Amino acid sequence: LPPAPEEGGGKRCGRHPVVSGNAYHVLEERFRRMAVLGECTAVLHWDAAVIMPASAAGPRGDQLAELRVVLHELLTDPAIADLLRAADPLPLDPWQAANLHEMRRQYLYADAVPGDLVAALSRASSACEATWREAKPRDDFVAVAPKLEEVLRLTREVAAAKAEALGLTPYDALMDQFEPDARQAAVDPILDDYAAFLPGFLAKVLEKQARGPEPVFPKGPFPAEAQRKLVRGLLERVGFPFEAGRMDESAHPFSTGYPGDNRITIAIKEDDPAMAVMAALHECGHALYEANLPSDWARQPVGEARGMALHESQSLMVEMQACRSPEFIGWLAPRMADALGDDPAFEPENLKRLYNHVKPDFIRVEADEVTYPAHVILRYRLEKALLSGDLAVADLPGAWDDGMEGLLGIRPPRLAQGCLQDIHWFDGAFGYFPTYTLGAMTAAQLMAAARAERPGIPQDLAEGDFAPLLDWLRRHVHSQASSRSTADLVADATGRPLDPAAFRAHLEGRYLGNG
Amino acid sequence: LPPAPEEGGGKRCGRHPVVSGNAYHVLEERFRRMAVLGECTAVLHWDAAVIMPASAAGPRGDQLAELRVVLHELLTDPAIADLLRAADPLPLDPWQAANLHEMRRQYLYADAVPGDLVAALSRASSACEATWREAKPRDDFVAVAPKLEEVLRLTREVAAAKAEALGLTPYDALMDQFEPDARQAAVDPILDDYAAFLPGFLAKVLEKQARGPEPVFPKGPFPAEAQRKLVRGLLERVGFPFEAGRMDESAHPFSTGYPGDNRITIAIKEDDPAMAVMAALHECGHALYEANLPSDWARQPVGEARGMALHESQSLMVEMQACRSPEFIGWLAPRMADALGDDPAFEPENLKRLYNHVKPDFIRVEADEVTYPAHVILRYRLEKALLSGDLAVADLPGAWDDGMEGLLGIRPPRLAQGCLQDIHWFDGAFGYFPTYTLGAMTAAQLMAAARAERPGIPQDLAEGDFAPLLDWLRRHVHSQASSRSTADLVADATGRPLDPAAFRAHLEGRYLGNG
Repeated sequence: LPPAPEEGGGKRCGRHPVVSGNAYHVLEERFRRMAVLGECTAVLHWDAAVIMPASAAGPRGDQLAELRVVLHELLTDPAIADLLRAADPLPLDPWQAANLHEMRRQYLYADAVPGDLVAALSRASSACEATWREAKPRDDFVAVAPKLEEVLRLTREVAAAKAEALGLTPYDALMDQFEPDARQAAVDPILDDYAAFLPGFLAKVLEKQARGPEPVFPKGPFPAEAQRKLVRGLLERVGFPFEAGRMDESAHPFSTGYPGDNRITIAIKEDDPAMAVMAALHECGHALYEANLPSDWARQPVGEARGMALHESQSLMVEMQACRSPEFIGWLAPRMADALGDDPAFEPENLKRLYNHVKPDFIRVEADEVTYPAHVILRYRLEKALLSGDLAVADLPGAWDDGMEGLLGIRPPRLAQGCLQDIHWFDGAFGYFPTYTLGAMTAAQLMAAARAERPGIPQDLAEGDFAPLLDWLRRHVHSQASSRSTADLVADATGRPLDPAAFRAHLEGRYLGNG
Repeated sequence: LPPAPEEGGGKRCGRHPVVSGNAYHVLEERFRRMAVLGECTAVLHWDAAVIMPASAAGPRGDQLAELRVVLHELLTDPAIADLLRAADPLPLDPWQAANLHEMRRQYLYADAVPGDLVAALSRASSACEATWREAKPRDDFVAVAPKLEEVLRLTREVAAAKAEALGLTPYDALMDQFEPDARQAAVDPILDDYAAFLPGFLAKVLEKQARGPEPVFPKGPFPAEAQRKLVRGLLERVGFPFEAGRMDESAHPFSTGYPGDNRITIAIKEDDPAMAVMAALHECGHALYEANLPSDWARQPVGEARGMALHESQSLMVEMQACRSPEFIGWLAPRMADALGDDPAFEPENLKRLYNHVKPDFIRVEADEVTYPAHVILRYRLEKALLSGDLAVADLPGAWDDGMEGLLGIRPPRLAQGCLQDIHWFDGAFGYFPTYTLGAMTAAQLMAAARAERPGIPQDLAEGDFAPLLDWLRRHVHSQASSRSTADLVADATGRPLDPAAFRAHLEGRYLGNG
């Protein structure tokens, strides 16, 4: 068959949904349209990472940009403002009210920033990110600095516009995009608390670790097909909905999808199956959150995942809380040996050491659970200083290295292991980093609450049974979608607001054996 | 990584292209946007056929429908009419003028039909097609007849509206959607000519064929991986741009894509590699047309493939004219044996008999080159009668069987082999069928002209060298895109208007050895 004729060929043309009902129902239909176009975007992103030939990078960028334009036009249509006003006095049930709240939030964000400024930041971020890609392997901060300066300048303007529209501080306006209602006033003490806790704790962990044997790494190569089969089996075990989804491969693992089409990607490394397994389980946590969102509210703002901190809590719940627990590793170890062949690394006690090895190092994405927050704290402090102007871009490399030395006692030997390592800032994502550690802390607090309610969970995990844990998460987190704030959701699920004590207790238990 | 936050999450918002210049340039930018969204549609269609879990059929339908709505809204925006008017007196070069002509054509089509009617036909077609899928295996015409009636009723209305707007007859308005400027007044004599030629010719072919041995079919199974490798090698040979494309598998082979991202699918059958090979080469012909369209006019209406008849001529040029020629089969046969193992079917003389076996049968998509036009003529006559009201839906099965008997002397034993076999009508595609045979005739005439200009082509094919033929097609067909009518393009390339004599001469040469 040749390519099907499209519009103009005339076979199929448009479809105008007939919407009746009050302003709220009209809004539901409008946001449904946007959600459907968002699904198109998700498929195109997935395809770009998994399938697309590299030669199509330019056209794909245009396609995604065009969909963004269409979505922005739909969202900032003046009729939306009128409908939001008209819907305000209507009698709504709690989920409808929360839905309206989320609609207003999305509208305010999109409307707050002039189109020209949005376009300018988008272009500056693309240009900066492209330069960063080339500068990083050469440790060439000078090459990327002017472009980062420009991204920063425009980000400040965007932050100011959003802050104005939402009645927030500029930094809060940036964080709020990723984790609604996250505020510097609450995040500062949480991260400062960890920064104060870390040095003493880390010393004790390293001392205890030094008394035991060094972990043995698996000696590869391990055939990709055997690893795939192992990972697939594990994802099935955890609950990934293969009957309505797929597992594929990409350079960096990620998850995406919508009801009926859940997609997860893994990255096989022939010489390091242990890390590939945990990366896949991490993505599975993200995927399960999305897959278990309430189907009644699919394609509505209130039906979306709450925010990036809560999203990260779900991936870390599966990876860090459940799958790196000694109970689950005890179950996993013989299965890895079955799938990949005997190797001293797959001895249960060694695998526990391997999966919970603590070592201050330079790269965030490879960091262990104990030192990871130090990487986040460093970036959180630096990005606030960059945005406020207290730190000049030119001084970033030095400030980074000093900060790293202060937090973890190590100094990066090169910029690619220092301030050039992460894509975020160079791509215009300021305010994202704290969600990683908020997520880790939330996961610890949720797991403590789940275990308090269901003391059998560790034993379930020792038998490779995720159903009781998953059922708890579904009830307390997934099914709640965006019906409440993260703070309320966490408080309802755990009986108290987010409190770094649960994370500290988890770490003390796991790494010092006091838990 | 979790799913990226989209609009509302606020990380990226819209991009408003700044367009300056006269009305023509503004139109170019508008149509560029539509083309980019059309590319999104192509990726989603590809994904649905190749990748998507079946559970996502519903959401995918919504996504495609939503993109259609957006495209329809962009195309029927009243500003387009104003711009078309304003661009009319501007000084334009010939390609720009042709582009404006195609823009007007697309606009007129989209604007001609009220949105409600478009939506009604779209819904009726979806419902009818779904019923047809269930009715076909049960030969249950009664189940689908009322829905076909409704599709037909709405198609008549759409045809009348388009006919009115374009100054055409209703049937011409339908054909014109698929092959611009195709007119019943020209198609009738061409197909009648073939209907008159066929009985005598077919008798001679069958008589000659009966004097030789029966073709031997390959005895499988042949491993899928070996077939894939063989097909991939053949597509490389023909010129499929693997450096900017992919080959995958789907239930029915198809091709799609845009510059930088050419995708072809094949369907492996373990027991029938011979047919899988030719189906892949057929798609390759479609793909090469798309891949060789002029990049300077990408994303503009004038840069698109001309129409479905010309598209089919390019697939049949590769499959029927080139790859089923005795010269190419002589080259292919030992390579099939190398790839799949020795089998008497892969003896060159047998493979020629196999690939050019003529047998009147019931199923269009399995028909040989000689009897295929009879299938098309039957459908062409019946669809005109259905649309005009001369044939009632209830009388279609009988009329079909009678027509088949008249044309090929055979009567289908069941409706799934008769009027229920093809999806087209049940999905609302009236006016498409004649393009198949117009394409076959165009291919024969183009090949005759190519060989007259480059007498070495048969010898090139005997050496597996497609470059000279492809170069000729690129110059005379692919590079022309929609800059001229099909009629002008064919006349320029071959020195005369489309004339069934070339096709008859091709058939006489190949099947009676008089060529």
